Amino acid sequence: MNSIRASKTVYGQLIRNIRLVSTTSKKPSKVLTLDTMHPLIKNVEYAVRGAVPIRAEALSKQLQTDPSKLNFDKVVFCNIGNPQQLNQKPITFFRQVASLCENPELLKPENRQLVSKLYPSDAIRRAELLLNKIGSIGAYSHSKGIPFIRENVAKFIERRDGYKANPDDIFLTQGASEGVQKVLQMLTEHNKTGIMIPIPQYPLYSATLSLVDAKPVPYFLKEEEDWGLNRKDLERSLQEARSKGIDVRALVIINPGNPTGQCLSEENMRDIIDFCHTERIVLLADEVYQTNIYQPERRPFHSFKKVLKSMGAEYQEQELFSFHSISKGMIGECGRRGGYFECVNIDPDIMDQLYKISSVSLCPNIHGQIMVDLMTNPPVEGDVSYPQYKAEVDAIYESLRRRAIKLASCFNKLEGVTCNNAEGAMYLFPRIRLPEKAIKEAEKAGMPADAFYSLAMLDATGVCVVPGSGFGQEPGTYHFRSTFLPEEHLFDQFCSKLEAFHNDFMKKYRD
Amino acid sequence: MNSIRASKTVYGQLIRNIRLVSTTSKKPSKVLTLDTMHPLIKNVEYAVRGAVPIRAEALSKQLQTDPSKLNFDKVVFCNIGNPQQLNQKPITFFRQVASLCENPELLKPENRQLVSKLYPSDAIRRAELLLNKIGSIGAYSHSKGIPFIRENVAKFIERRDGYKANPDDIFLTQGASEGVQKVLQMLTEHNKTGIMIPIPQYPLYSATLSLVDAKPVPYFLKEEEDWGLNRKDLERSLQEARSKGIDVRALVIINPGNPTGQCLSEENMRDIIDFCHTERIVLLADEVYQTNIYQPERRPFHSFKKVLKSMGAEYQEQELFSFHSISKGMIGECGRRGGYFECVNIDPDIMDQLYKISSVSLCPNIHGQIMVDLMTNPPVEGDVSYPQYKAEVDAIYESLRRRAIKLASCFNKLEGVTCNNAEGAMYLFPRIRLPEKAIKEAEKAGMPADAFYSLAMLDATGVCVVPGSGFGQEPGTYHFRSTFLPEEHLFDQFCSKLEAFHNDFMKKYRD
Repeated sequence: MNSIRASKTVYGQLIRNIRLVSTTSKKPSKVLTLDTMHPLIKNVEYAVRGAVPIRAEALSKQLQTDPSKLNFDKVVFCNIGNPQQLNQKPITFFRQVASLCENPELLKPENRQLVSKLYPSDAIRRAELLLNKIGSIGAYSHSKGIPFIRENVAKFIERRDGYKANPDDIFLTQGASEGVQKVLQMLTEHNKTGIMIPIPQYPLYSATLSLVDAKPVPYFLKEEEDWGLNRKDLERSLQEARSKGIDVRALVIINPGNPTGQCLSEENMRDIIDFCHTERIVLLADEVYQTNIYQPERRPFHSFKKVLKSMGAEYQEQELFSFHSISKGMIGECGRRGGYFECVNIDPDIMDQLYKISSVSLCPNIHGQIMVDLMTNPPVEGDVSYPQYKAEVDAIYESLRRRAIKLASCFNKLEGVTCNNAEGAMYLFPRIRLPEKAIKEAEKAGMPADAFYSLAMLDATGVCVVPGSGFGQEPGTYHFRSTFLPEEHLFDQFCSKLEAFHNDFMKKYRD
Repeated sequence: MNSIRASKTVYGQLIRNIRLVSTTSKKPSKVLTLDTMHPLIKNVEYAVRGAVPIRAEALSKQLQTDPSKLNFDKVVFCNIGNPQQLNQKPITFFRQVASLCENPELLKPENRQLVSKLYPSDAIRRAELLLNKIGSIGAYSHSKGIPFIRENVAKFIERRDGYKANPDDIFLTQGASEGVQKVLQMLTEHNKTGIMIPIPQYPLYSATLSLVDAKPVPYFLKEEEDWGLNRKDLERSLQEARSKGIDVRALVIINPGNPTGQCLSEENMRDIIDFCHTERIVLLADEVYQTNIYQPERRPFHSFKKVLKSMGAEYQEQELFSFHSISKGMIGECGRRGGYFECVNIDPDIMDQLYKISSVSLCPNIHGQIMVDLMTNPPVEGDVSYPQYKAEVDAIYESLRRRAIKLASCFNKLEGVTCNNAEGAMYLFPRIRLPEKAIKEAEKAGMPADAFYSLAMLDATGVCVVPGSGFGQEPGTYHFRSTFLPEEHLFDQFCSKLEAFHNDFMKKYRD
């Protein structure tokens, strides 16, 4: 069906029209087409794996078959927070436990002597404990996740916040994304249901809202105030939506921010909670970057659960969902797909509905669940594996912090570019001021100017970033999102490549 | 919020009404409630983990805290095809490779000597190959799945069918369920879109159709003809739906059948394909039980892809999705959530849309993907691990076959019970003829009579099955679904418990 494959081009469109016209006399060849598919899926956009990353993938293939025409010898994927793709090492203890759970033969008495030369005693004990509680990792578990692991998550939350957590309020998930999708769908009563999301935002939110036919109600983060948000903006955005007849049900806060990297102050969080309480709005706290905190004295992480619990009695019915993940932090176990969400003050009938809908997919994968256990219950002082665990986590953390500073400083040296430092997360979101000529060229090519810039960067350097237009931004501004995950020993080279590209680009398009 | 928790009882309903009335003067306490949630989620039913299994779960907990009041010392979960929960051993080679991938430290030269005492050489080689192709198993992969593994799946399909398969047409998934949900959603243009499903059916289908607001168009399997289906019934069901203005787009066939265990003849399959071709209907083939075949001479498994390819040129545009899973067969790795679907003759634009929607969830988990690789590419004759692999697979298979026969014969001896033998899958679906008195008691208790029977069975024996009403059945008939997965050495005891229960039940309610 080459004619259909070609349909994205003008030529293809012509062919397609002919095909459609001809259906009056002849059956069209396919039943399931763009014209007959689910209309909401068609509207979904997901820039993190959109046009620029798809081109990067193609270039990556080309490097294997015909590298001579390319300006680089490697594609560097800075479009996605995927640390192990860029050679971040996994935490040794976590993988040791996971591999023992995978192969219980190793725990048999006859293998014990050999295995104790390969594995520390606490990894062996932990694997035995987990297998004892789970049974087989090859079996479906409880649809909310293994009860023992949910108990450990609850204890972790209690240690983190200093307030009680109930294992029954916790759902383990296949990554935070799955949890977010479920909760957003649950919240959507009809197509006038509004969900407040930040701009810029992580496109999981806009994609999911498209899919469930809810209305995104954007509020803008203020670049000049370190990507902060204030109550007035929330109120303005809410009133505007309500005046259009939108029934606003929930507010999404990503803290630390993605793509913007800010970390909210406690005072700001209280204000947000008060706003939700006053306006009867459910709060969704995407807190997957809670350990990626780079200015811990000035901007430590506080969970929304903790701040809520510390407030007066009148706030203690405020509905809150909080999301966490094994993919971020210093763990970076993206490939396993693991995470959880905690439900705070959620109607028990809704909890039952969430359980029911989880059961249709049977259960979150056990390997992800085991990693949630390890993340929330790592080695502690006195354990055999603690020194190595601590050394690994500290090394990753310190390196991320150094790289965040280095990349921001690299961006800030570029002509027309300004970039806030990262308080948290894994990304920078520099603002680029592009010459008029570049903006016109982009228009001609039928794409936003930041996509044009990002594609030029990819072709020149092999570095793949995501255009700001994929996250949303103040009209008339241009940005891109880049992780600061490339390996540290390659980082100077990485920065100077970006610098050279930017200088060339500006020279070429200077007004 | 005890008043909300109680709302399922009559008393709770009273409280609830009061609460609603009082909202005129006072704000209701929750924003997200049964009244404001997504209305389609509310309609979803999923009996495999429904009322009877939820009670079984509670009894299982009670066994730990207060066993004295129960008639049994163990709950036997026959409600779900979850072999490893009932102590089926995983395939050794598969777990060896998986554990090496999990802990690449073991593959380092300095550990090689020790590791070679614990692992066969082919498991080591396979893990090295996989890691080489995957990079880190801690990284997100391509959203359709790791290209190397999709290539292996394509080769597996070619070996199985004798016809070409293209890795680009294959999507790896988190279990077959995820694939089915995606494809059903994609097929649903509006709320008059109809999808033909068998009755009885696996409730994933009805649940997903509820959720995407498509119309299930039921066709009945004929119990007296070994749960076969014939074209006339398909045509009757299609015409009836069309006469109601339903736009029928797809036909789901579960082969081998779940819950019914039949395996279709090639002739029957050709007829079904011709029906789809004539009526312009996309075929969805749920083929997850393709290796669970217990009468291989009389009823071997044929894939719909193979039968389609063997037919004339006029059929070669027929659209087909075929689903497979690592959870079934002799592997039973349910907890990992792995599977794939192959798209045959699907519009490339739709393939792009499926890719896009997969990318919003980033990727299927890597552990499930690795198991798909191993399932489709197991040890072969000459490999060090082949003898053990073959012995394990054969032992599980032969035991399943014996248990299927034994359980059917046990059911057929019971008063008023008839049960077809299993040609495939993991289930029996006996028909039970219940005394009028039992039916009346069930009515009084507000539940279908087969649910009443199944709950009585659970309370008396600890055996958890799923009532036929959860799958659909001919009106006026009653059934239940039971796996034949309890361990073989406990099987005689298992059968005699069921027999004793049934006799008591019939005595109690005899007309």
